[in-house]
Amino acid sequence: MALLDDNRLLPHDVAGRSLARRLYDSVKEAPIISPHGHVDPAWFAKDEAFSNPTELFITPDHYVLRMLVSQGISLDQLGIKRKDVSARDTAVNPRAIWHIFAAHYHLFRATPSRMWLDHVFETLFELDGVLCAANADDYYDRISECLTQDAFRPRALFDRFNIEAIATTESALDPLASHRALALSDWDGRVITTYRPDAIINPNGADTGAFAMAIEALGEITGLPTTTWDGYLDAHRDRRAFFRSFGATATDHGHPTAFTAVLDQADAAALFDKALHGRIGLQEAEQFRGHMLVEMARMSCEDGMVMQLHAGSNRNHAAGIFENFGTDMGFDIPMRTDFVNGLKPLLTEMGHHPGLRLILFTLDETTLSRELAPLAGAYPSVLLGPAWWFFDSPDGMRRYRDLTTETAGFYNTTGFNDDTRAFCSIPARHDVSRRVDAAYLASLVLSGRLNEQDAAEVAQDLAYGLAKKAYKL
Amino acid sequence: MALLDDNRLLPHDVAGRSLARRLYDSVKEAPIISPHGHVDPAWFAKDEAFSNPTELFITPDHYVLRMLVSQGISLDQLGIKRKDVSARDTAVNPRAIWHIFAAHYHLFRATPSRMWLDHVFETLFELDGVLCAANADDYYDRISECLTQDAFRPRALFDRFNIEAIATTESALDPLASHRALALSDWDGRVITTYRPDAIINPNGADTGAFAMAIEALGEITGLPTTTWDGYLDAHRDRRAFFRSFGATATDHGHPTAFTAVLDQADAAALFDKALHGRIGLQEAEQFRGHMLVEMARMSCEDGMVMQLHAGSNRNHAAGIFENFGTDMGFDIPMRTDFVNGLKPLLTEMGHHPGLRLILFTLDETTLSRELAPLAGAYPSVLLGPAWWFFDSPDGMRRYRDLTTETAGFYNTTGFNDDTRAFCSIPARHDVSRRVDAAYLASLVLSGRLNEQDAAEVAQDLAYGLAKKAYKL
Amino acid sequence: MALLDDNRLLPHDVAGRSLARRLYDSVKEAPIISPHGHVDPAWFAKDEAFSNPTELFITPDHYVLRMLVSQGISLDQLGIKRKDVSARDTAVNPRAIWHIFAAHYHLFRATPSRMWLDHVFETLFELDGVLCAANADDYYDRISECLTQDAFRPRALFDRFNIEAIATTESALDPLASHRALALSDWDGRVITTYRPDAIINPNGADTGAFAMAIEALGEITGLPTTTWDGYLDAHRDRRAFFRSFGATATDHGHPTAFTAVLDQADAAALFDKALHGRIGLQEAEQFRGHMLVEMARMSCEDGMVMQLHAGSNRNHAAGIFENFGTDMGFDIPMRTDFVNGLKPLLTEMGHHPGLRLILFTLDETTLSRELAPLAGAYPSVLLGPAWWFFDSPDGMRRYRDLTTETAGFYNTTGFNDDTRAFCSIPARHDVSRRVDAAYLASLVLSGRLNEQDAAEVAQDLAYGLAKKAYKL
Repeated sequence: MALLDDNRLLPHDVAGRSLARRLYDSVKEAPIISPHGHVDPAWFAKDEAFSNPTELFITPDHYVLRMLVSQGISLDQLGIKRKDVSARDTAVNPRAIWHIFAAHYHLFRATPSRMWLDHVFETLFELDGVLCAANADDYYDRISECLTQDAFRPRALFDRFNIEAIATTESALDPLASHRALALSDWDGRVITTYRPDAIINPNGADTGAFAMAIEALGEITGLPTTTWDGYLDAHRDRRAFFRSFGATATDHGHPTAFTAVLDQADAAALFDKALHGRIGLQEAEQFRGHMLVEMARMSCEDGMVMQLHAGSNRNHAAGIFENFGTDMGFDIPMRTDFVNGLKPLLTEMGHHPGLRLILFTLDETTLSRELAPLAGAYPSVLLGPAWWFFDSPDGMRRYRDLTTETAGFYNTTGFNDDTRAFCSIPARHDVSRRVDAAYLASLVLSGRLNEQDAAEVAQDLAYGLAKKAYKL
Repeated sequence: MALLDDNRLLPHDVAGRSLARRLYDSVKEAPIISPHGHVDPAWFAKDEAFSNPTELFITPDHYVLRMLVSQGISLDQLGIKRKDVSARDTAVNPRAIWHIFAAHYHLFRATPSRMWLDHVFETLFELDGVLCAANADDYYDRISECLTQDAFRPRALFDRFNIEAIATTESALDPLASHRALALSDWDGRVITTYRPDAIINPNGADTGAFAMAIEALGEITGLPTTTWDGYLDAHRDRRAFFRSFGATATDHGHPTAFTAVLDQADAAALFDKALHGRIGLQEAEQFRGHMLVEMARMSCEDGMVMQLHAGSNRNHAAGIFENFGTDMGFDIPMRTDFVNGLKPLLTEMGHHPGLRLILFTLDETTLSRELAPLAGAYPSVLLGPAWWFFDSPDGMRRYRDLTTETAGFYNTTGFNDDTRAFCSIPARHDVSRRVDAAYLASLVLSGRLNEQDAAEVAQDLAYGLAKKAYKL
Repeated sequence: MALLDDNRLLPHDVAGRSLARRLYDSVKEAPIISPHGHVDPAWFAKDEAFSNPTELFITPDHYVLRMLVSQGISLDQLGIKRKDVSARDTAVNPRAIWHIFAAHYHLFRATPSRMWLDHVFETLFELDGVLCAANADDYYDRISECLTQDAFRPRALFDRFNIEAIATTESALDPLASHRALALSDWDGRVITTYRPDAIINPNGADTGAFAMAIEALGEITGLPTTTWDGYLDAHRDRRAFFRSFGATATDHGHPTAFTAVLDQADAAALFDKALHGRIGLQEAEQFRGHMLVEMARMSCEDGMVMQLHAGSNRNHAAGIFENFGTDMGFDIPMRTDFVNGLKPLLTEMGHHPGLRLILFTLDETTLSRELAPLAGAYPSVLLGPAWWFFDSPDGMRRYRDLTTETAGFYNTTGFNDDTRAFCSIPARHDVSRRVDAAYLASLVLSGRLNEQDAAEVAQDLAYGLAKKAYKL
């Protein structure tokens, strides 16, 4: 049995399907622009074979982990390594984990993970028959065998996936060794970096010394006096320029809220000093972080880097999981977010500055029609990023269009991005987006809200043009 | 004119209908599992005839009352008895009330109440022609006549409705006389109780003495020293065991918020003492209640009772209605709810405990995709209850699936429950759920997101299997 | 190419379309009741020709302005006059602005503005071919030519639009000169006013003296001692009566929140005094405003004026735009709103008063199913206004029905209103509403939730009857 329906996600009535199909066909082969994501640049720098199906599909994918955990399977059973080496279960082997996954594959019914996985299984590994306990070994063997072939190495897949440009995301302190290696290589794939300074911006109200250590490391890497306020800001400028020298066109900021603040430089400097000495309270830390977003926006006005802000994740909600296994284990839970009041200070200062481009992402869908579409549909600096994370899904994308188009139109949005660590899923994710948008556009045409010629132009923009333009690629 | 369309709530296009119809037909006769509801156990213990149409359909149904009141009909006119006996209008008679109801039946157009009522009118009482002023007496006479027959007594209807198990809900202080009578009877219907300790958990910041009186009553009924903290906790254990001896597999907790707190035992004991003496403030009362939810979760880990939490109702919003007529008059209004921060303390302690099963209900639909599906789709202890109360409706159920499936899948949800006092509406409510789910599953199949074989399996799980498993029935 | 699809917004399947078409056809010619809007009464009093296409379609329409601004066009370029006369760009001419608009018309794809504009272009000015840079002059010339004709003067259009009654909105301090002129004229069009006292109710925590000046003006216009609390309340009564003498049946209240408060008269008087002397804090100002909404409700119980409350707009979010250009420039951004707790004091006192009718509007769609439908579906005084402002759109209206009907039914809603300054768009807006409702009703019929006879009756009520009844017209 084929895993994929060729007309999946398109309308099933005759008129809707044929129209949506025409729109989808016109964009399905468009090159992939992946301007925001988390694949490991070392894959392309080293171009080594992926190790085995489990490490390709399960271990790094928090979507897969959380669903298995939600039904009582432990992270230990799934081979996730505990921070405490002595507590690690060394008995688990990749094939055994694959068997657990296969036996629980029904949990993923009707989830986007299922569609992405089936897409990769069928199109990349030519598998058929839904994964289950009975065919777990067949799957494992087939994928393992493929992974030994040159055609399945990262650079070959990059070409096969028709990726025009992909951005990875690195910490502000990252030496960008893989990006340097790529720059020196003769491979012509466009893999660029993104400046992510969260760790040197967010003191988090903690007295753990982590912030001070990060600022010290920033000093070492830049040679600047980062324990002074001016030196610290200069170090940001220095690192931003360094990232740009490896192709970066954007910065990325992930914070619990969208709070911003415009402080006097003296007040900001005082908070910075408190943070350095572990004496900053939670509210002061938020003030500092809020002000630093404004400083980042100011630097964007100077250097032209596109600023991305995603807010509203209650990271590491399960403290025990975080303590034992670390981040990105599926326990980042969305929460209510306020963009309207949060961004007001930043937008009051720079919302009409021609040099600022601010792309917003949300995990709180209620903000789409209430806050984000109105903000993006008014401020020239604000664009609305695509349906994200939990909402990178057919229904999530449909609701996103439903909730934003009438107020913001299409041209205040930024096309699709995959935001993923799961390299093989990239074509699947872009394909879902192109199908959902084709279906949406077809519904507009059939209800007399858009003519077909305009719809075809919009389809191309959503699949390719808007992302390229928004991220200055 | 028939009241019911045989294909109601199924898609009307040919492909969608035939597929949804197959799915629906495969589950429409499945036994009813009703694991959370409010029917009176005395009905089954005594098995007496229901009195008249008005007391069967209008007086006990807050859905019906509120809609009539919203258009200016008073509760007095509807025969609702005032607390103050001297203020009661004794002139109203059931038939007159029925006439008011019939004359305003158009208010219920497109509401679930209308569909439930028509379902009962047609399938149980074999009525046709939409209820209106003209046929009000025909309806009244026909129903009255039926109610005198043995086939319309509670136990006969229980069998006719094909109920496999039904759970009622009783206060922790309830002597469970009806359940005891049922246990001693030779009737084999499975009617179990549920432990609802709100009154002995929530001091409500009131100095009315109600809390102290409840704790005193708890002491009397258990013979334990309930004015001490340890005695109070033991009394909970005692009552939980007592409820389990009458079949209870679950506890039920209805609170304005999902706030939880883990306090030191000494601090909790001190708050308990304050509450007993009417000296507890509103915020302290919330702390105490939040901590008691944690204690309830701890006891669930011990005794295996499934814990249900429904949050977000601003009870008795209309103070005058409450003062004159009491609770459940249609003036419980939903409000914004925060599960992510509220449940964090409880889940930090016990979210991964294999003994905990926590089922969550919401009246704030924004929490479905933002908070509840992510929580249920990650924590092994958390399951998501069905669309509830105002959302126990075709559109409410559809939105529920739309907002939860992609993140939580189907297997972190608990099937349907009717949550009703309106006994005769139970088959109608389950039928609506089965139809809406069949339509939803058909849409997934037709958009290539689920194959039909899996859809059939899921349909069975949603209609029967998940509820049975979730509630350990 | 025709701009409009004759079946726009109706379902495209055969059964759905033919049914929806029948329902729509039965109401499409119904007279327009426009009980809440912002057209200038001087247009009808003077009946002068509109000046040019730019001043008809662009300058006064904040929907159009914000979309153009969101893509980098400045308000100066669009000919919006700065408050500071010396800073005005006098070089812009209407035709040049029209060219900018035409060149950016693609921004409006799939927005309601596009549908309203195309509707007017085609039905009123008999234009075809989508507006673009190439035909900008043709459009401009054609519209300009029409505007010189008598048939395009305000009164002629009023008749042509089949408007039965239209309400404008005037400040409490407005002398209603145009309404007086209309009353004295022999024209029989029904143009009534609405009492909007925001400026004399909301001290806004400001010490700018604006509130004191407004209260002084209120004293002058009424001849009452408005600097005393009793005189101030009497002045409200006086103005309400004055507005009623020009046909007003309603009051309108636009505030950032739905907060209400019942204060002692002495406390309210003290706050009033503080406000008069610019010594009122922000929270005190909210208390005062909240109390004044209660006073307005009390007066409505006395004089029978329908009370409208719209909450949840963060007005003039872009401070710079407000400072330079004033209000209504597209930078009013919705925000989270709490009706349940906010209205509780007012509804506790008067929610069941037979003299109160309170119509609520929201920009926070999450309140529709959670708060507003439950409130309107319970309190006899509360009705729910239509999808409003950003949600006066096909998808917004569909979501509104989806989120409210099951709980509030149809008869606790108030039909459609256009709430617009853009006079020519009124028929287009009502037409969109009638089409969307027809499509919605058809979907209910086809899913067996409503019979066709009832649907036809409801369609008529939604298009005409409910608005007329709700506003006592």
